[in-house]
Amino acid sequence: MMTMLDRTPVQKFVDGLEKVVGAATRPVVLHEPEFGNNEQRYVADCITSGWVSSAGKYVDQFEARIAEFTGARHAVVVSSGTAALHAALLIAGVKPGDEVLIPALTFVASANSAVHCGAVPHFIDSAEDTLGVCPDALDAYLRDALEPAGDGFRNRKTGRRVAAIVPMHTFGHPVRMERLLEVAGRYKITVVEDAAESLGSSIDGRHTGTFGVMGTLSFNGNKIVTTGGGGAILTNDAKHADALRQLTTTAKRPHRWEFVHDQVSYNYRMPNLNAALGCAQFDKLPQMLEQKRLLANRYIQAFGQFAAGHCVVEPAGTRSNYWLNAFKLASPDRGLRDAMLEASYDAGFHCRPAWELMHRLPMFVDAPRAPLPVAERLADSIINLPSSPKLAGQNTPHG
Amino acid sequence: MMTMLDRTPVQKFVDGLEKVVGAATRPVVLHEPEFGNNEQRYVADCITSGWVSSAGKYVDQFEARIAEFTGARHAVVVSSGTAALHAALLIAGVKPGDEVLIPALTFVASANSAVHCGAVPHFIDSAEDTLGVCPDALDAYLRDALEPAGDGFRNRKTGRRVAAIVPMHTFGHPVRMERLLEVAGRYKITVVEDAAESLGSSIDGRHTGTFGVMGTLSFNGNKIVTTGGGGAILTNDAKHADALRQLTTTAKRPHRWEFVHDQVSYNYRMPNLNAALGCAQFDKLPQMLEQKRLLANRYIQAFGQFAAGHCVVEPAGTRSNYWLNAFKLASPDRGLRDAMLEASYDAGFHCRPAWELMHRLPMFVDAPRAPLPVAERLADSIINLPSSPKLAGQNTPHG
Repeated sequence: MMTMLDRTPVQKFVDGLEKVVGAATRPVVLHEPEFGNNEQRYVADCITSGWVSSAGKYVDQFEARIAEFTGARHAVVVSSGTAALHAALLIAGVKPGDEVLIPALTFVASANSAVHCGAVPHFIDSAEDTLGVCPDALDAYLRDALEPAGDGFRNRKTGRRVAAIVPMHTFGHPVRMERLLEVAGRYKITVVEDAAESLGSSIDGRHTGTFGVMGTLSFNGNKIVTTGGGGAILTNDAKHADALRQLTTTAKRPHRWEFVHDQVSYNYRMPNLNAALGCAQFDKLPQMLEQKRLLANRYIQAFGQFAAGHCVVEPAGTRSNYWLNAFKLASPDRGLRDAMLEASYDAGFHCRPAWELMHRLPMFVDAPRAPLPVAERLADSIINLPSSPKLAGQNTPHG
Repeated sequence: MMTMLDRTPVQKFVDGLEKVVGAATRPVVLHEPEFGNNEQRYVADCITSGWVSSAGKYVDQFEARIAEFTGARHAVVVSSGTAALHAALLIAGVKPGDEVLIPALTFVASANSAVHCGAVPHFIDSAEDTLGVCPDALDAYLRDALEPAGDGFRNRKTGRRVAAIVPMHTFGHPVRMERLLEVAGRYKITVVEDAAESLGSSIDGRHTGTFGVMGTLSFNGNKIVTTGGGGAILTNDAKHADALRQLTTTAKRPHRWEFVHDQVSYNYRMPNLNAALGCAQFDKLPQMLEQKRLLANRYIQAFGQFAAGHCVVEPAGTRSNYWLNAFKLASPDRGLRDAMLEASYDAGFHCRPAWELMHRLPMFVDAPRAPLPVAERLADSIINLPSSPKLAGQNTPHG
């Protein structure tokens, strides 16, 4: 008979999942939303009102609630997290031919949004503890990579201005923003935070997405709060908020009937229907964040004595929303990672590796980049675990 | 006492509105959607299912119903009409630095979507009868304006390749597509139809949006069918349909867990929640089209004996959805047009002029353009009239 001691790391990994979320109905997906009476009620009310589109009370309400929750002075909702980043980078002054510093370890939307501005992504490395941009590595890199030019700095090799940096709070874990702001400030690089994954995450009580000039959220179906599809831009600058609203709603000049538009612009409006869903989701956001914290603690415990790896915990001084729990191998091993993914899928647990690193995607292989040793190690070490809030209430009797 | 003979054109214009839609509750807005039990039911079902986002049965159903209704082999739904045009132009091969022929008389999204591809809009004139692109004027213009270059034609003045043309079916009235295809074909210009306003409009029984390589629809809140915000691309080409799906859903390669993306792409997905609303709207589309036809006939009759102008009727050989009814002054007169708009607004009827012509907008004043005599006359002649389907059931006892 096989004892626990005989079990392979792959088997032990699946054992850990069984222990924490084994009581849930299979397949246990990576992240799914929770809807209840308020979602049905607000959306039904929205349809009854006839205002499902760009105007309507839920858009205003949703923006007010996002601002209140995050502490940002203004929130502007849009149709996706990608649209939010695109609009924020444009308003931040990113021009065609500029470079934008983007972590190599991120979802592809971060890099795409730079290209949507006509800019070039320039990939930078992560920190082992936060998984996000490492300000120290960045500091060391920029010292040699950049040179002053005009009122900013340019890439010494390509000659292109480095206009902005997009730190992304990976899986909800906050980047060390204070140090990052200091480094970016020294090179006059505008900071736009990609807080798509970190609604509810904060540093010393200050919400992620409110450190940079602007910050963006995502309300995609796999996020803590979903509107079906959607996003938001946070900012404390009223001028930026106004400019964002203009740019994302076809830049129409206000008039009773005239259709005059001031600039090339976008139709990135969030429909009122989707904002209604978002308002209902915000009603239960504090409760969902608690559930996710409970679940994270269960995972951390379950893999606590595991030689092959452990769960990522929130960086010191920060509070993570634990959007996606992450198991990290003690040493990078893509073969073992894939074997664990195979076995967990076969057992009905939909785990996931980190995204393929940006500089390995076909369209970005030639993009400029810093040395990326940590991102490359992390890519071969990380497995995301099923993280829906409701799983916190589904632990097995022996869990 | 004042008799009918003494009344000014402005007063008579308001009289006409009174006659047709005077029984409706004020203000009578330009166009509003109609929602009923099915809208509530499908959207509630969508929320209950938990699938509100990118995957889910309503997206598939909605695409199938659009394809069935229009006769297009494929329909790909996206988050807005602008997104639909942007994606269609990219798949049509529009490259940065190209020019795209766009009617001067259109909504700004047509021109913006060319710029979103990095291309330059090149404005062309309208026909008096269809209000859309005039193929004859185009033919005469291109003969001198273009010259052969490579495997296409370029603007003789700017040297830029003229890659595509975007005929827009204004207020639902079909452009003369057969003749347009002939002219465009001669200059190897790809035709992408902007059918944002013409769902339900056809030429000899063939639906608008199915003549070009691709055609686009809009489901904005002011359209016949609304999804809150949304759009679709129609095409008979399976390869284009596949390419559009990839481009609008972050170009993720299908895999159980890997996140590999093949190209720079967009998050333009229509959420399942919005598609559910669209399915319910399609249930009543035939009925709404009948109502709109009835209303159009009432307007045509009411202004039939009016010396100052008349209503635009569907071009010969076509069937218009009469998305927006249009009153047209017998001769252009911006002062009279504005006086009529003021008076109708004051009486509670939200009429509207045509859009400000594209070449008069600040961002497009320097764009290349053909002579635009007809568009300029139309801009000073047209007033759109309240056109919601439900207004067909609201005529006054004497109407």
